[in-house]
Amino acid sequence: MQALRAEFPVLERLAYLNAGTNGPVPRRAVDAAGAALEEQALGGRGGGAFFERVVGAGGRLRARVAGVMGCEPAELALTGSTTDGVNAALAALDLREGDEALTSDEEHPGLLAPLAAARERRGIRVRVAPFGELAEAVGPHTRLVACSHVSWVTGRVVDAAGLAAGPARVLLDGAQGLGAVPVDVAELACDFYAASGQKWLCGPNGIGYLFVRRDLAGQLPSPWPSYMSLAAPERALELELLPDARRFDTAAPAAQQLAWALAALDVLEAAPGLDAVQARAAEGAERLAGELAERGATVAPRGRSTLVSWEHPDSAALVERLREHGVVVRNLPGTPYVRASVGGWTSDEELDRLLALAG
Amino acid sequence: MQALRAEFPVLERLAYLNAGTNGPVPRRAVDAAGAALEEQALGGRGGGAFFERVVGAGGRLRARVAGVMGCEPAELALTGSTTDGVNAALAALDLREGDEALTSDEEHPGLLAPLAAARERRGIRVRVAPFGELAEAVGPHTRLVACSHVSWVTGRVVDAAGLAAGPARVLLDGAQGLGAVPVDVAELACDFYAASGQKWLCGPNGIGYLFVRRDLAGQLPSPWPSYMSLAAPERALELELLPDARRFDTAAPAAQQLAWALAALDVLEAAPGLDAVQARAAEGAERLAGELAERGATVAPRGRSTLVSWEHPDSAALVERLREHGVVVRNLPGTPYVRASVGGWTSDEELDRLLALAG
Repeated sequence: MQALRAEFPVLERLAYLNAGTNGPVPRRAVDAAGAALEEQALGGRGGGAFFERVVGAGGRLRARVAGVMGCEPAELALTGSTTDGVNAALAALDLREGDEALTSDEEHPGLLAPLAAARERRGIRVRVAPFGELAEAVGPHTRLVACSHVSWVTGRVVDAAGLAAGPARVLLDGAQGLGAVPVDVAELACDFYAASGQKWLCGPNGIGYLFVRRDLAGQLPSPWPSYMSLAAPERALELELLPDARRFDTAAPAAQQLAWALAALDVLEAAPGLDAVQARAAEGAERLAGELAERGATVAPRGRSTLVSWEHPDSAALVERLREHGVVVRNLPGTPYVRASVGGWTSDEELDRLLALAG
Repeated sequence: MQALRAEFPVLERLAYLNAGTNGPVPRRAVDAAGAALEEQALGGRGGGAFFERVVGAGGRLRARVAGVMGCEPAELALTGSTTDGVNAALAALDLREGDEALTSDEEHPGLLAPLAAARERRGIRVRVAPFGELAEAVGPHTRLVACSHVSWVTGRVVDAAGLAAGPARVLLDGAQGLGAVPVDVAELACDFYAASGQKWLCGPNGIGYLFVRRDLAGQLPSPWPSYMSLAAPERALELELLPDARRFDTAAPAAQQLAWALAALDVLEAAPGLDAVQARAAEGAERLAGELAERGATVAPRGRSTLVSWEHPDSAALVERLREHGVVVRNLPGTPYVRASVGGWTSDEELDRLLALAG
């Protein structure tokens, strides 16, 4: 774990407990992105070789993240953000007037805004149920359940098996899932899994991922078509789409962005591996939640995740005070909560510092 | 002009005549992006101060590019690419079954694919007319004209006044316009102008711009809603949108991307200014076209732009041969053309090298 911590310069200065917003940045990622910048400045950005290098890096990233999610590369789209993935899934689905989308009371605006827009434009109904009761709330008109895999508010984990047992399509917002906890989209049995690259995978802002189940990936229309979605760009008006999730790509990330994302995966997947990083994070979060509760804090009900939220009468002030002492957490506006994000890179000493100041 | 050339390391090695794909990368942009990377690694990416720095840089970029386009910042959306802008405009417009979109025979797949998708999903008709006859081709059912400002194939400039005189909405693809030639969206009288940042503005891949005329920007729905489109994210389901073109933002660019884009504008707008850079580019392109024709080449009909395309029986082979001699141009698959992109940074000597090898 000391080796992992040494990869992140920010940890030399701060107890950085905010990967749920943006992960810590590995030194190796900065170096890799810097080398990619230099290469573009010296060699230019033209010609087949440059294009092939960038497309190749995109393909490697797709394959590696597919590995993390337990899907095929052909089921994974490159997006700009979790919200991109949510928008893409909603745009591709044939939801019509009167169809119901079910969501929860612990969702991020990045999921809710696309749902609300589909309500305004397409006449779907959006129903909100408590996060913990979603599976039971699925009704006869529910065509889609769109909700978090791991709640960004409380760190609770959704009842994916319960959702999968129902007749509705399932779109999971994996912003606090991918990289943070083990994700196996086959086991989750979801149709779509939209996630971020900049949080628990420690990648750059501006790269996200969307899993699209194989049968849907080859059949649904391209929600945001581009040169890169086409099997035959020279006959673009014929709209012959790529036969897999690449038709869902909403972005073609730049070389420096890809270099960062790949280097960050190298760091997280180095021995002892991502599973070990995730197990350590879950243990740290469990300890933090337990000790906060022991000290009398009201900790939000949570699952096996990397987020710990607890109530505070002036959450913004506490966040500020912690920041002054070099401990970075966040509050959640509109809720009573302060939220700490515990990574596999987080030390016991950092958690003790947080407890001493917050408890 | 020597001072401008000195900003671009690639010009020390190559006659880089491919800004129509991706512009040359300024040394200052690499330095600025590198500093932004370092800052994120050392300081983390959490907290209000980080967020405000990134949002502030985005606002500065929006304002500066609005200045280049002759619009208000409130009329300019930040996107990931020209294609993003085209998709966003089409998604926001209320085009329905039977409505006609008119386009030209010199369009990029990044414009055609979204049009074709609207045909498949929404039942609009897509009609293709010759680029030079678009204004006359507008018919009684034409609701939208979607075409290039400057043709990526030939470098011709569209009859914007003719289009504006008609009753249809006008969406211009400015991929070969913005930064290359003077752009004044008021004079062009278009409703939308979608453009790239990585070509003639020498910015990073992954940042584009979409002008949305003020009355439309405040009225049309958000085509790809996110946290950043909302006036009240804490009540996301109410979908209270920002009252200007920010509701069209399809991306929130990362700090390193913004730093690059802003530094590249510093380079292009330094004395004697972007107008002078553009005038010099137009003159260089004019000279190249003239001398190619004098040597017997069939040069594509062109306007006052930065692109010069000429026929060659084996365009791919010529591109390869030029590359071997350090001259970077491209061919245009599906056409007989080789295309050179002439920048304000291009020297007479570079054009002479191209002419000696190609003529």
